[in-house]
Amino acid sequence: MTRPLSVAVAGLGTVGAGLLVLLRQNAELIAARAGRPIVVTAVSARDRGRDRGVPLEGLRWYDDPVAMAAEAPADVVVELIGGSAGPARATVEAALGARRPVVTANKALLALHGVALAAQAEAAGVPLAYEAAVAGGIPAIKALREGLAANRIDRVTGILNGTCNYILTCMQAERQGAGREFADVLAEAQKLGYAEADPSFDVDGIDAAHKLAILAALAFGRPVAFEAVHVEGIRGVSALDISLARELGYRIKLLGIAERAEGGIATRVHPCMVPVDHPIAKVDGVFNAVVAEGDFVGRVVLEGRGAGAGPTASAVAADLIDIARGRHTPVWGASTLSAAPAQPMSAHRGAYYLRLMVLDRPGVIADVTGVLRDHGVSLESMIQRGRAPGEAVPVVLTTHDCQESAMRAALQRIVALEAVLEPPALIRIETF
Amino acid sequence: MTRPLSVAVAGLGTVGAGLLVLLRQNAELIAARAGRPIVVTAVSARDRGRDRGVPLEGLRWYDDPVAMAAEAPADVVVELIGGSAGPARATVEAALGARRPVVTANKALLALHGVALAAQAEAAGVPLAYEAAVAGGIPAIKALREGLAANRIDRVTGILNGTCNYILTCMQAERQGAGREFADVLAEAQKLGYAEADPSFDVDGIDAAHKLAILAALAFGRPVAFEAVHVEGIRGVSALDISLARELGYRIKLLGIAERAEGGIATRVHPCMVPVDHPIAKVDGVFNAVVAEGDFVGRVVLEGRGAGAGPTASAVAADLIDIARGRHTPVWGASTLSAAPAQPMSAHRGAYYLRLMVLDRPGVIADVTGVLRDHGVSLESMIQRGRAPGEAVPVVLTTHDCQESAMRAALQRIVALEAVLEPPALIRIETF
Repeated sequence: MTRPLSVAVAGLGTVGAGLLVLLRQNAELIAARAGRPIVVTAVSARDRGRDRGVPLEGLRWYDDPVAMAAEAPADVVVELIGGSAGPARATVEAALGARRPVVTANKALLALHGVALAAQAEAAGVPLAYEAAVAGGIPAIKALREGLAANRIDRVTGILNGTCNYILTCMQAERQGAGREFADVLAEAQKLGYAEADPSFDVDGIDAAHKLAILAALAFGRPVAFEAVHVEGIRGVSALDISLARELGYRIKLLGIAERAEGGIATRVHPCMVPVDHPIAKVDGVFNAVVAEGDFVGRVVLEGRGAGAGPTASAVAADLIDIARGRHTPVWGASTLSAAPAQPMSAHRGAYYLRLMVLDRPGVIADVTGVLRDHGVSLESMIQRGRAPGEAVPVVLTTHDCQESAMRAALQRIVALEAVLEPPALIRIETF
Repeated sequence: MTRPLSVAVAGLGTVGAGLLVLLRQNAELIAARAGRPIVVTAVSARDRGRDRGVPLEGLRWYDDPVAMAAEAPADVVVELIGGSAGPARATVEAALGARRPVVTANKALLALHGVALAAQAEAAGVPLAYEAAVAGGIPAIKALREGLAANRIDRVTGILNGTCNYILTCMQAERQGAGREFADVLAEAQKLGYAEADPSFDVDGIDAAHKLAILAALAFGRPVAFEAVHVEGIRGVSALDISLARELGYRIKLLGIAERAEGGIATRVHPCMVPVDHPIAKVDGVFNAVVAEGDFVGRVVLEGRGAGAGPTASAVAADLIDIARGRHTPVWGASTLSAAPAQPMSAHRGAYYLRLMVLDRPGVIADVTGVLRDHGVSLESMIQRGRAPGEAVPVVLTTHDCQESAMRAALQRIVALEAVLEPPALIRIETF
């Protein structure tokens, strides 16, 4: 088997250019591991004239990626355009329509249209591979889909967005004893290129939710369901809460969590309090991590770079090597998918951190704790920081496990109390 | 493809019995992920009468695993006997001789006879799979061989022996302010079942060296070479050195390290000083970890349980699922292997921690540092702990990078100094 695997690449941004560099620079070792050379033969991008720092001589150029996907003389189509609709989706559909294997790094596309695309790929009998779509260079898809395939997975937890983890890490790193606020750190991250000019996709948790939807489909062998993911971002995390978390023995992380729960499969992305000695609490900066818990294997932690040209190209190339070797796995890892229902967030059970700013006067704590009692929410601890009679002071309450709907109902009444001065901070505590 | 994959299991110890439990308990999801059922049809072990807690009805029993490997009506032979020679080796050879795929958890066998066995497997055109041989349930073999296959790997570092990591972690956990000595912790570990009655295979580093030899072969695409691994165990690590390491900002870990060096591929297993903020410094207890550094992917860290029935059975079953799916990879990950030479330990360059017990009298430090200077070893720091004129005091020296042979030559002269009272402790500092 020495005929090269020929590849058409749609999209020549950072990752596309990085893939061309990788396939050229490591051509020899890739040929040895893939059993045959892997060579790019065609490319497509918006602007032919732009200098991308990689030579494009000898490659067939297409202005239209969809035409390339359908017609280019290539064995595999790699989609690196991005976005859940438009040319990215059309390119993947055209390639699968022409019965060509597809490799993509596009989490939004898979999260939103993965069910239809997987059906198209399976009908065509060709692979649809996406190692690069989740956690960048970490081989998390392969680990879940193959390495841990003999396990019933009970939970998958991930730090899936490097921008959020970078911001939270910076907020936590004390400068002259004080944490920093979200807006301040975000502005700095934007200057450094770690956050986009429009950061909402990252900081509002949407990108992490796309990735979690994919992980959940693999872990629990069911069709991808982005709409079932409960999503909260990190805009509401304050320096005060980060510092209080530290005192309580926690770190605040934006986690994606998919788990078996009483009411079905729960999938949620939100800021979490994580015990400081859990491996995921120690994953800092732009690094990503995926933690899988299986019934036989126990806990497996994978950590690495979740974004950037090199790590993403590494994952795309791994998929190409699998295709070159003829190693084939169903899109969602299993021949038959389960129909386990999604558990709504209101049915979530867990512990909570609730931080209020209240007027420092007698009776306020009794009012607050009375509301919690009325809703069956049992307290684990209460801390009132400092004294300032007649002024605002923070009060922190942590609860035992209770139901989200009860907590939400209690919160609605607490917010309405006259002595409660600001919107409260509610952060879920994950004990694992 | 719904015909079951039938499996013959040689060896019904903890792992063999665990595999039977796993394949039965998770039969349905394994069939979905493997595309067909995986069923054990034949078993072989020494004592037919022993109660292993798993029913063996309906399974064909063989007293002789070699006969089973050659003749049993099975698609795949799983070798879980253990040991580098004797029946384990004969069983694998018989199975490959009959052109049957083999799955094994046997690191000693692969480290010592992997070249010949791989040649036999490739001549027969059948897989020889061994995910369970390294780092138990962590899919480290798959990550290196497939997930990171597009990278030139520069270094692989591992905590590969859970017994040693458990002992070092306990020694480090202070009890009433004092660390504990090796012999004390080992005795406790033996009582708890974390260490064997004869612990030398683990604590002398041999087991870790077997695993490192396998990782090095995969990472650098060359034939496995156990005899090239430099091996030191943890018997010489003292509570004093653990406590001094902590003061210097390090943890002491038994690491296996395989890396590209000037003189070729260096492979070594020995106690290391690791910076306290490196992910591998935080892997405690019986957990294992593998860190791979690739030219495009950067650093990837994998952590999980390195031993035990569940994790090991999980890895064996993952190999069986690959075989059921027809996913095939060459034994050492590449179609052609490199002939990169092995760098001898004498050519190693690195920094050192040297702790001496010396007579507290003027001139001793000058003598010691004079010897180091004569051998071109440059000092980074020197600490003398406490004063006790005329008695023994510890002196700690750390060096800049120098060559092992120079350090060894200097050490020989230092040991001969009259004021140096005990055998010195020499621990390599890994800065990564």
